Amino acid sequence: MQSPEPMNTADFVNDLPTPAVILDKRRLQANCERMAERARRAGVKLRPHLKTAKCAEVAALATAGQFGGITVSTLAELEYFFDAGFRDMTYAVSIAPVKMDRIERLLTKGARIQILLDSMDTLNELAARPGQYDGAVSVLIEIDSGGHRAGVAPNSMQLIALARRIAEEPRLSLEGVLTHAGHSYHAADDAARKEIAIAERDAVVYAAKRIRNAGLECPTVSIGSTPTALTDIPLDGVTEIRPGVYMFFDLSQAQRGVCTIDDIAVSVLTTVIGHHREAGHLLVDAGALALSKDVSANEFEKRIGYGLVCGTDGNLLRGLYVADVHQEHGLVRSVADDLMFEKFPVGSRLRILPNHACMTVAPYREYHVIESGSASLLCWPKTSGW
Amino acid sequence: MQSPEPMNTADFVNDLPTPAVILDKRRLQANCERMAERARRAGVKLRPHLKTAKCAEVAALATAGQFGGITVSTLAELEYFFDAGFRDMTYAVSIAPVKMDRIERLLTKGARIQILLDSMDTLNELAARPGQYDGAVSVLIEIDSGGHRAGVAPNSMQLIALARRIAEEPRLSLEGVLTHAGHSYHAADDAARKEIAIAERDAVVYAAKRIRNAGLECPTVSIGSTPTALTDIPLDGVTEIRPGVYMFFDLSQAQRGVCTIDDIAVSVLTTVIGHHREAGHLLVDAGALALSKDVSANEFEKRIGYGLVCGTDGNLLRGLYVADVHQEHGLVRSVADDLMFEKFPVGSRLRILPNHACMTVAPYREYHVIESGSASLLCWPKTSGW
Repeated sequence: MQSPEPMNTADFVNDLPTPAVILDKRRLQANCERMAERARRAGVKLRPHLKTAKCAEVAALATAGQFGGITVSTLAELEYFFDAGFRDMTYAVSIAPVKMDRIERLLTKGARIQILLDSMDTLNELAARPGQYDGAVSVLIEIDSGGHRAGVAPNSMQLIALARRIAEEPRLSLEGVLTHAGHSYHAADDAARKEIAIAERDAVVYAAKRIRNAGLECPTVSIGSTPTALTDIPLDGVTEIRPGVYMFFDLSQAQRGVCTIDDIAVSVLTTVIGHHREAGHLLVDAGALALSKDVSANEFEKRIGYGLVCGTDGNLLRGLYVADVHQEHGLVRSVADDLMFEKFPVGSRLRILPNHACMTVAPYREYHVIESGSASLLCWPKTSGW
Repeated sequence: MQSPEPMNTADFVNDLPTPAVILDKRRLQANCERMAERARRAGVKLRPHLKTAKCAEVAALATAGQFGGITVSTLAELEYFFDAGFRDMTYAVSIAPVKMDRIERLLTKGARIQILLDSMDTLNELAARPGQYDGAVSVLIEIDSGGHRAGVAPNSMQLIALARRIAEEPRLSLEGVLTHAGHSYHAADDAARKEIAIAERDAVVYAAKRIRNAGLECPTVSIGSTPTALTDIPLDGVTEIRPGVYMFFDLSQAQRGVCTIDDIAVSVLTTVIGHHREAGHLLVDAGALALSKDVSANEFEKRIGYGLVCGTDGNLLRGLYVADVHQEHGLVRSVADDLMFEKFPVGSRLRILPNHACMTVAPYREYHVIESGSASLLCWPKTSGW
């Protein structure tokens, strides 16, 4: 779709089938520039995590001016981004050796893929399996920097044992160490966030130092997570950051002070399908599948529910929130119980800001891209699934 | 894929990429037969809701021996099931008139589609819009039977006003009344569930009686919801039931006593990708996107988390549950803190029973179908999105 005159956003969004994800390109670019500036000042490479956006056009903006490497969370993303021309990818979920077939297929075609592990069992299996790829597979060792989801402790014997074994295996090569401070999402304030960021940095820098002291190479020292990346701590010893949700931001990040609500670049466009005046809610066609059941932004403030409500211009309608969701129904209420039903007739459109962008945008097949104020009428396809 | 000798399930599930949805055909058939028997005994038609399965092969089983009508929740489902040969469909979400274009396209091709509304505004807009379909569109009036999500009260003036207006409009035809007792999902026991089922039935039967007393026709009197459909109350005056999740069942239904855990026909196949012995959990590759963030089965019993864990044979591993999820990680713990890590090596497979099947299976593109005990190696595609 090309139009000689840009339509205004309101016309544009009234023509789309709903639910649909609207992506504000100006905000997306500003968010990408903010993270690029953070990486530049800290002297680290930016390897953006595309598990949120799952979209080549977004990846192009996030890697603009960077070295070009990206991070992914599924084999489907690896294959999609390879087809879109990306070559240097870190698959940042512990590898199951059974998944190596699909990875080696890409390596053989010229991809550079770093895989992740934290156990000798996995390493034994990797080393033992017949490989179709005629080269060494780059391996990162996952470090537990306090999130206690996965990874080995930076001061553990296990770390050095894994590093030695990887370095010795002819079909593996030791790329370095990686951590993800996912628990930073639960930090209540800047001070708590900074404390986690320091622990995240120190864990991998210490792990890398121990590996090097053991006489091994450790070129990559990688940290990730938007909340920790956007603190201002020095990152000496770190070589790269892998944040993802910063491109879009969401209510969860806004609640934690990582961004403002005006930075949020994605919203779910929805149509009003009913009024239930007695029950005090509007019905919209964005429900549990369209918004996800993630309620993470309610951790520190209630009455966010499944999302805050904006007009089609993207401006917040103060006090309106999605109080409940069913599979294909959302129930919009007003905090002050003063919902002006006549302002939102059946058929009118609203935009919902998501709690957690990664969860909300995942099932959609494309982004409808607008520039703030006017529509560019672009449709950017994305991948999904596994 | 066809195999002369059926593989056993364990071999079959070890070859699939994960996460993936496994569908147990024998359980699916038994669940379908149970609901068919309920409809037969109650003397009502069964119009199964396909918002859960979103799959033509499942729809074929659910409509076997029935009149052939189905229920859907999105335009994408309407189009998918039309292409699969289904002709009589109720789109059971309040219509937004802007969506009529896609519906009329199907009507023109020979579909019979019932739409739903509960407001005069919607009706005015429907009547006013230019129609491409050369016939009358069948309309159901939504009744609020106590769920207070949508619908008009059965004793309201509004009901008769809507019915009259629909009957008078040359491009609309009054098909009847419909309700969904979604609040039955929160009924704590059989008695509470039965009470809701009675209220659901009485609301539509009363609404239909009032419409007929006003001299209008009301051929369809439709109720829906698996928990209420599976009570044994008489359904005099009701013409059809529209349950959906009964085909698969899930932990939420099992918790409410609507089924047993052994009736659950869907599970998410996952691969163990790590051990975190210090933190006391296994890591699996089924996380928030693969399982959904629905935790509804925890309403009455804790320690279900994001799902209960089975072996590849589908038998429950007592005490194991998915305690937490991140985007592509699930954390499996043992209730008794006695996780036997050595029984679940990295690369081994598990099957997770979902809290809420509708949420969990939605993003997947297909079902991997097994017969209990042996694999049939079937892959049934499904639709998703809007």
